Amino acid sequence: MSLSSKRLHEEKVFKDPVHRYIHVRDTLIWLLIGTKEFQRLRRVRQLGTTSMTFHGAEHSRFSHSLGVYEITRRMINVFAGRDHWNEEDRLLVLSAALLHDVGHGPFSHSFEKVFHTDHEWWTRQIILGETEVNAVLRQVDPQFPQAVADVIAKKSSNKLMTSMISSQIDADRMDYLLRDAYYTGVSYGHFDLERILRVMRPECDQVVVKASGMHAVEDYIMSRYQMYWQVYFHPVTRSSEVILSKILWRVRKLQEKGYKFRQPPRHFASLFTNELSLDDYLRLDETVMYFYFQAWQDEEDPILRDLCTRFLNRRLFQYIEFQPEKREEDWQKLQQLFMEMGVDPDYYLVQDSSSDLPYDVYRPGAGERVPIQLLMPDGSLRELSQESNVVEAISGKKRTDYKLYYPKDTLSACGQRVAREEAVRILTRG
Amino acid sequence: MSLSSKRLHEEKVFKDPVHRYIHVRDTLIWLLIGTKEFQRLRRVRQLGTTSMTFHGAEHSRFSHSLGVYEITRRMINVFAGRDHWNEEDRLLVLSAALLHDVGHGPFSHSFEKVFHTDHEWWTRQIILGETEVNAVLRQVDPQFPQAVADVIAKKSSNKLMTSMISSQIDADRMDYLLRDAYYTGVSYGHFDLERILRVMRPECDQVVVKASGMHAVEDYIMSRYQMYWQVYFHPVTRSSEVILSKILWRVRKLQEKGYKFRQPPRHFASLFTNELSLDDYLRLDETVMYFYFQAWQDEEDPILRDLCTRFLNRRLFQYIEFQPEKREEDWQKLQQLFMEMGVDPDYYLVQDSSSDLPYDVYRPGAGERVPIQLLMPDGSLRELSQESNVVEAISGKKRTDYKLYYPKDTLSACGQRVAREEAVRILTRG
Amino acid sequence: MSLSSKRLHEEKVFKDPVHRYIHVRDTLIWLLIGTKEFQRLRRVRQLGTTSMTFHGAEHSRFSHSLGVYEITRRMINVFAGRDHWNEEDRLLVLSAALLHDVGHGPFSHSFEKVFHTDHEWWTRQIILGETEVNAVLRQVDPQFPQAVADVIAKKSSNKLMTSMISSQIDADRMDYLLRDAYYTGVSYGHFDLERILRVMRPECDQVVVKASGMHAVEDYIMSRYQMYWQVYFHPVTRSSEVILSKILWRVRKLQEKGYKFRQPPRHFASLFTNELSLDDYLRLDETVMYFYFQAWQDEEDPILRDLCTRFLNRRLFQYIEFQPEKREEDWQKLQQLFMEMGVDPDYYLVQDSSSDLPYDVYRPGAGERVPIQLLMPDGSLRELSQESNVVEAISGKKRTDYKLYYPKDTLSACGQRVAREEAVRILTRG
Amino acid sequence: MSLSSKRLHEEKVFKDPVHRYIHVRDTLIWLLIGTKEFQRLRRVRQLGTTSMTFHGAEHSRFSHSLGVYEITRRMINVFAGRDHWNEEDRLLVLSAALLHDVGHGPFSHSFEKVFHTDHEWWTRQIILGETEVNAVLRQVDPQFPQAVADVIAKKSSNKLMTSMISSQIDADRMDYLLRDAYYTGVSYGHFDLERILRVMRPECDQVVVKASGMHAVEDYIMSRYQMYWQVYFHPVTRSSEVILSKILWRVRKLQEKGYKFRQPPRHFASLFTNELSLDDYLRLDETVMYFYFQAWQDEEDPILRDLCTRFLNRRLFQYIEFQPEKREEDWQKLQQLFMEMGVDPDYYLVQDSSSDLPYDVYRPGAGERVPIQLLMPDGSLRELSQESNVVEAISGKKRTDYKLYYPKDTLSACGQRVAREEAVRILTRG
Repeated sequence: MSLSSKRLHEEKVFKDPVHRYIHVRDTLIWLLIGTKEFQRLRRVRQLGTTSMTFHGAEHSRFSHSLGVYEITRRMINVFAGRDHWNEEDRLLVLSAALLHDVGHGPFSHSFEKVFHTDHEWWTRQIILGETEVNAVLRQVDPQFPQAVADVIAKKSSNKLMTSMISSQIDADRMDYLLRDAYYTGVSYGHFDLERILRVMRPECDQVVVKASGMHAVEDYIMSRYQMYWQVYFHPVTRSSEVILSKILWRVRKLQEKGYKFRQPPRHFASLFTNELSLDDYLRLDETVMYFYFQAWQDEEDPILRDLCTRFLNRRLFQYIEFQPEKREEDWQKLQQLFMEMGVDPDYYLVQDSSSDLPYDVYRPGAGERVPIQLLMPDGSLRELSQESNVVEAISGKKRTDYKLYYPKDTLSACGQRVAREEAVRILTRG
Repeated sequence: MSLSSKRLHEEKVFKDPVHRYIHVRDTLIWLLIGTKEFQRLRRVRQLGTTSMTFHGAEHSRFSHSLGVYEITRRMINVFAGRDHWNEEDRLLVLSAALLHDVGHGPFSHSFEKVFHTDHEWWTRQIILGETEVNAVLRQVDPQFPQAVADVIAKKSSNKLMTSMISSQIDADRMDYLLRDAYYTGVSYGHFDLERILRVMRPECDQVVVKASGMHAVEDYIMSRYQMYWQVYFHPVTRSSEVILSKILWRVRKLQEKGYKFRQPPRHFASLFTNELSLDDYLRLDETVMYFYFQAWQDEEDPILRDLCTRFLNRRLFQYIEFQPEKREEDWQKLQQLFMEMGVDPDYYLVQDSSSDLPYDVYRPGAGERVPIQLLMPDGSLRELSQESNVVEAISGKKRTDYKLYYPKDTLSACGQRVAREEAVRILTRG
Repeated sequence: MSLSSKRLHEEKVFKDPVHRYIHVRDTLIWLLIGTKEFQRLRRVRQLGTTSMTFHGAEHSRFSHSLGVYEITRRMINVFAGRDHWNEEDRLLVLSAALLHDVGHGPFSHSFEKVFHTDHEWWTRQIILGETEVNAVLRQVDPQFPQAVADVIAKKSSNKLMTSMISSQIDADRMDYLLRDAYYTGVSYGHFDLERILRVMRPECDQVVVKASGMHAVEDYIMSRYQMYWQVYFHPVTRSSEVILSKILWRVRKLQEKGYKFRQPPRHFASLFTNELSLDDYLRLDETVMYFYFQAWQDEEDPILRDLCTRFLNRRLFQYIEFQPEKREEDWQKLQQLFMEMGVDPDYYLVQDSSSDLPYDVYRPGAGERVPIQLLMPDGSLRELSQESNVVEAISGKKRTDYKLYYPKDTLSACGQRVAREEAVRILTRG
Repeated sequence: MSLSSKRLHEEKVFKDPVHRYIHVRDTLIWLLIGTKEFQRLRRVRQLGTTSMTFHGAEHSRFSHSLGVYEITRRMINVFAGRDHWNEEDRLLVLSAALLHDVGHGPFSHSFEKVFHTDHEWWTRQIILGETEVNAVLRQVDPQFPQAVADVIAKKSSNKLMTSMISSQIDADRMDYLLRDAYYTGVSYGHFDLERILRVMRPECDQVVVKASGMHAVEDYIMSRYQMYWQVYFHPVTRSSEVILSKILWRVRKLQEKGYKFRQPPRHFASLFTNELSLDDYLRLDETVMYFYFQAWQDEEDPILRDLCTRFLNRRLFQYIEFQPEKREEDWQKLQQLFMEMGVDPDYYLVQDSSSDLPYDVYRPGAGERVPIQLLMPDGSLRELSQESNVVEAISGKKRTDYKLYYPKDTLSACGQRVAREEAVRILTRG
């Protein structure tokens, strides 16, 4: 019997703080959760370094993935029996929902910038390659893995399915907003999920929302806006992120220079040669990264040693508002002064802007995620920001937050009084 | 100026999902939180393997320690100006509250059983040894570290202080019940913390509770009872715990036998020789443990390899109810059958009883933690279970839950049909 | 087309703070909610005088009735397709759930004691008499009203249905515990409704609960226990109740004596002659009662005037612990002293015991409500308190709380110094 | 001893679902709560007819008034010891916070429109006239009642105090948003009260908010915006409000015409002659109104009878979108058709626009409530909408929602086929 029609003898549930219970009826889903590639997500935190700012946010991508599955499941319950929804697509969407993040590595954002990896590419490898996930999916049908990968990669001809897990109001975002709000403990991030699900309708090309539910959607967009500015772009989190990135750059640089590591970055080795195998990649979880960070506190290289110690003990960089194009001269001068002080500006004077982050506010016109369409009483569709003042106000207006990060403590301890005092003067001029 | 009277220019707060905000006014507390020994608690989870059962429970001892501090701080606000409470003890109790768990290592419970370490002993080393924590505490007074260690070790002559963080209704338990309930998402574990704090009163030897608040205390005791049976003693969590313990035993055994590890347990080395230094101990966090578990999936030794693979991929053991003294014959027979099947019963046939766990229900008469005293309207004290039917019903009655764990999947795959079938017969006889 | 198969074009929902949404799909249910007899429940509060103690508890029987319907609806979703459950009974149980309290009048408890009315009797009249409710029910089938009345009156041969809305763990109690906890704001009263529903199973004679859900049921029983002692039996609530009862007694007495009211109790008239019609009864809601209480503040009769003023302005009686059989002499003496002071003891010296109240703790053996049966893994049934220490501890043990209520302010103002001082001496002796 | 320095022996608390506990330490506050004028607020609901739409919203102005007091109390705790805050003003602000709504009558909004009463005027009478409230306030100081009245009336020279209870972000609004959200059960209306209080600072003329808390304030403004559109302006609530107003108009009209009531509006009598005494006013609570509505179901006048029956049994009017100035012709025609059908358009064809309601969105420039000022890091002040895109987007833009209400059921039953069909055509043209 194909796995496509197998059901568990008794429904299984996972206790979940956000959705109360996560319900599993299909044997396929149960088996996918049990694969080692999916279990690995327990060792990758959802919010990377955010727990340095919000100590409660220590939840993993495992929890989030279950949540995306559960929201999708409930969405399907609403769609059942309606036009444009084909019940035969159920397992396909559920699998895609569950597996959409399976290729994420630790601290993805920093990692990918330094090593040019791409979690979406790895997601496809895990689904299509020689993995337990693939073996389970093939039990449905030999074409099934490809179909799942296509939905996740937005290459499926069925755009409705894609929009369920990847659009401006999809199961992915709805889960992470609620979940990140719950674990950080902030009061933003809440919205009426049940109401939104009730007013969602399947259309030919995408999920739309009945106009009567517009205010619930506004509330969701506002939650998102608040979470971005209050949590995701928090300057302290970005400070940890800056240090983390610089560690990775340093390792790469040292490796290139032929530096002899006391604890060689064995797990990273093939990264440098672009020969990273799937197996290697799967071993690179957060615990392994931490192992190296800890070991590297004893390296000879003072920069790697210092950065790792900072990261582990949360000795973060200070920051000031600093928009480079407006202060080009200060920027040049600071770099020079840092060099005079013997503090390498490549690692210790870091510009960072929030627009570098993989989050955005609602943008109706651009981006790959389809905008939100309201289903009007007369059956026509209207893009959300056309109807909502509030959404119009925040959509598209990309606000960038420029910061300059530097180690205040190192400067204080620096013996080059003249250079130091001038640097401090510039840094505190604001 | 001694650190004892230094206050931060502006109060600092930590956003906390359980207590909403954690408030820090004292420079001493702020500095302690910033020490590397305290930051290390971010890498030790509060509930060890519980997240294998309740996926949301990924919170660290760092969060919990802040919570215990915060509850103690609020308790002191209630005590302020009352008899028996000496405002000069404030920083001492707060420091003890914050640091009471600082000596915990990863998976303490299993770890300590195998390697005979003792987190309380390490807590004292961290407070009294050459650490950042010690350096900060000394700034208050050279005797201060010893005083803090004494309160935590219940050796202080001031029993009131000890009872605030270590009694049957202390800041420690109140935080972990609320926090573990929040992160697991179970509906037990809630009680009216604010009400309990309002009715707490300092007495000569301990904190007592006004009789008018008895029902709130009953509710707390019941939460505790429910959390024990529903969360802490959950048989699936214990299954992960069993595997973890057996990994550690196996490593120890292999080391003793002179086995050549592909990835030698360098971080554990001094454990075997009983020469573990404080520095070594502090490096042993959960991420390091996971690094080894992952590496050991490639060891030659089949038992270590298998157990590590199980632990990482959550291939847990099955369990049945099994009280050994009642089924001595079955127990002998099973061991023999396992050996026949080539499945080493030392690692794959494991008895486990809940009474081994470091939790208990309310026991008025015994144990080191002082029982709960109600302050009656006439000023006399009455032990809680004398007044409360409910508490009386559950107190002291140590209920043990006996389980036998074994790898069902391994048995199914075993070729020794006769032995296997007989073993299965015994295991399913119930 | 019979109403039994009519469904609304679109599901209607009511926003509910306790259950989030209350869902209505059946035209029958929608029409019943719209009847004037059901709408009248908006003018009868669920907890009578409790809002004098817990100011938030101003919710009506209308809200509660919707809640009982909703829980029953969810219970049916769990039962669907299982043995012993007949889908054809769906509308019958839902109607009974919705209407089970439709005969309640204002302050039922006090009212019924004084005037010997019976809300259950009135519920039947409303369902079977010439009412809008009856007219709607008849559209299903001419026998349908009788069937609904029988389920509510526990006279139906189908005991399973009865137990869904009237047993030791029924939709009625589960809603009122959660709802009363929500509106009072107490932290007791919460339990995991979703979990309990998930483990409920229909059996031949009653709803039972899978043994694996025992702890959730324990939690429910404990919530109940706490709500009784903390909310329902609260001595301040009982003080308001005492005054209310005495107002009604006084009106009855005055009417019997031929007293000339300034505001005659027109709405109560037929009560005195036992000729109360259904129409009269339906007009007797809480707002009408308050109208009279307010008007009677200007009556000539000093007792009625005083009691009404007290009730409206919350000038409640004081109370002391007082068990009459143990202090017979004091009791006689107090009555005599009150008479000497000119304070009529019939109205101003009132014994009250909690066991008079229409709530009880769990009693497996007695009472009309069937006890809770656990469905064991082997298919057998076990009564809950046999399995649960906690439940055993509180079940059946009827604890009575005796109080004596009196107007402390009146005594203080009394000129009979000798009598007063002696009375105070007795009252404060405790 | 003046009441200004008296404190209760033990702090009293009220359990409150929104703020958990309301704390009272001052004897003055305790006595004010006990006055009959304040207790009367238990009989006036906070949201009038809203419970016809959101059945949970049955809470009274009593609860809300306690909540405003509590928020003000917490605000003062934050202000203590800061510039611009004078601790001697504490009791004055607290009294004003507690009493700011004491003059509200039942269904104030409709009532005031028909009878030209003014709850603010009555608030002053209650504070300054011969009342229990006044007697308590005088015990502080003979000038104290006037001072309290001035703060409430915004006539005090101390504008800081006024802004605490009456500005764009005051204790009044913050309580009602949280409370109304809690009781309706909607997911909007929540914001981080604790955070906002933490960043509030007293300035010379008003309370300001530290810029670092801007996002919390944005969230509050958005909650307000959502509550207005989702709850306060809900078209079904306005339908009940329309019927209520028409009842009052009809009574007034009948009284003017000399109609002989079966149940004469005795409590309203002096309203018609503009001789309403304070005593009369205080008796006019919601229960009295309902008494008359019920009695008037039996009046001879068919309009009064019908409207009262509709109100009590929730037989509301239907509504359509209808902007009169855009459809002047339809409007004239409809009135004529209604007259032809014998359905008096003065009572049964009612225009209503949301801008008539006593709520508004944030308007920085206009209105009597002072706008929100952010306290920038450099000490300057900036009006909120200058800094916040989101607030700018919704502030000032008064969006009016025009509706036309009519009794669809009456039309359906009407025999004038031609007129009816034409009316329906116009009404459904949209």
